[in-house]
Amino acid sequence: MKRVYKLRLAYDGTNYCGWQRQVKQKTVEGELIKACEKIFRNPFCVYGASRTDSGVHAVGQIASIEVDADITPYKLRGALNAHLPKDIVIQEAEDAEPDFHARYGTKEKTYIYKIYNNEVPLPQYARDSYYYHKPLEIEKMQEAAAYFLGEHDFVAFSSLGSSFKTSNRHIYKLNVTKKDGIIEILVNGNGFLYNMVRIIAGTLIWVGTGRIRPEDIPSIIESKERKNTGHTAPALGLTLMEVKY
Amino acid sequence: MKRVYKLRLAYDGTNYCGWQRQVKQKTVEGELIKACEKIFRNPFCVYGASRTDSGVHAVGQIASIEVDADITPYKLRGALNAHLPKDIVIQEAEDAEPDFHARYGTKEKTYIYKIYNNEVPLPQYARDSYYYHKPLEIEKMQEAAAYFLGEHDFVAFSSLGSSFKTSNRHIYKLNVTKKDGIIEILVNGNGFLYNMVRIIAGTLIWVGTGRIRPEDIPSIIESKERKNTGHTAPALGLTLMEVKY
Repeated sequence: MKRVYKLRLAYDGTNYCGWQRQVKQKTVEGELIKACEKIFRNPFCVYGASRTDSGVHAVGQIASIEVDADITPYKLRGALNAHLPKDIVIQEAEDAEPDFHARYGTKEKTYIYKIYNNEVPLPQYARDSYYYHKPLEIEKMQEAAAYFLGEHDFVAFSSLGSSFKTSNRHIYKLNVTKKDGIIEILVNGNGFLYNMVRIIAGTLIWVGTGRIRPEDIPSIIESKERKNTGHTAPALGLTLMEVKY
Repeated sequence: MKRVYKLRLAYDGTNYCGWQRQVKQKTVEGELIKACEKIFRNPFCVYGASRTDSGVHAVGQIASIEVDADITPYKLRGALNAHLPKDIVIQEAEDAEPDFHARYGTKEKTYIYKIYNNEVPLPQYARDSYYYHKPLEIEKMQEAAAYFLGEHDFVAFSSLGSSFKTSNRHIYKLNVTKKDGIIEILVNGNGFLYNMVRIIAGTLIWVGTGRIRPEDIPSIIESKERKNTGHTAPALGLTLMEVKY
């Protein structure tokens, strides 16, 4: 009997070349497939909601597994976690509808980008926060964030190689907060272009240093030119928090 | 001219055999001494406030350096950080009184012990929190915590090998809180016996599981018997937060 499982995964992406399976590199999907090979006798298919980049972390990555098997989701979670490396952990497993496919039908994704903004770095934040030593004006970053809300063509905020039909995306939330020295950029939208969250983070950093004015954001978006946006902030600051269907 | 510097250090203790210099093992003090050797031509002495154990972390370890040198504290911080490994960072450096000695005259120390209490671990917390899967009743842990306050002979909460003149210590604060799945035990006192914070944490965990009742704490303290207290909670959950003189 074909069964579809929906999994929620958390991982520390530091030691992985991203999500997607690769022949010679260690990836999160690759490890998940290896664990499945130890559990299932029958052929299976694995799909992931988001192809996170090398070094990007997740708390709420979603994967689906299609397989002819009879194991309960609870036992599957235990068996997978027993075979996965310690920095990848299945948080939840459940039965999904037969047509559920983690890659398609995503309605919302939420990411958090973390920046540790201080004169010297703090080792405790070194794995999942981007250390930035120049002082950032958080009020300006918050002011700029508001201009991103709504539906726009975000092609200026994508790296070459995006191959989507449309580069329009809808951002529902973009909150910039600061706590314990960490600036958190939380972004929630219906989908994101390649590197879009990291380029938004890089652009907000430039706003924080005064290199871009908050009120320039609308014309930067309209320009559709990658050269007008900030740098692609490093992968290690990014965590995929949630995917909704 | 002899000069005394006071340093505040943060480190991720995962890869170190504790603070204290050892001949064959990598330690935090050992790394600090190596960095000093690259900076100072003259002989120097390094002292640490707290001999943190293997795997224990710090945000607020204090060290003092006595040396005949003329470098400003600001430049010393920069030079040390340039030579230290990335998981040890001098947060602050300042000139201290000529008789300042990091090991002596400490008035208060604050530690935080973190427990991630959930059915499955979260990789994001794996480096600095103890993963404990059985549900813990936080209200009982809070109730128990109150009994530790004040001055007591805490010999029951120390590992063999303590060689202090007295095992009386005064605990000013012992707060148990929970946030984002992490139980934080914050303890502040005038000093701690060897492994005392970790044994308090282990005992509070036993209270959380129901193995010890909160109201049994006073008689456990009075018994002065290590066998009546909980296990020594693992080092990785412990962080030295602050030292006051």
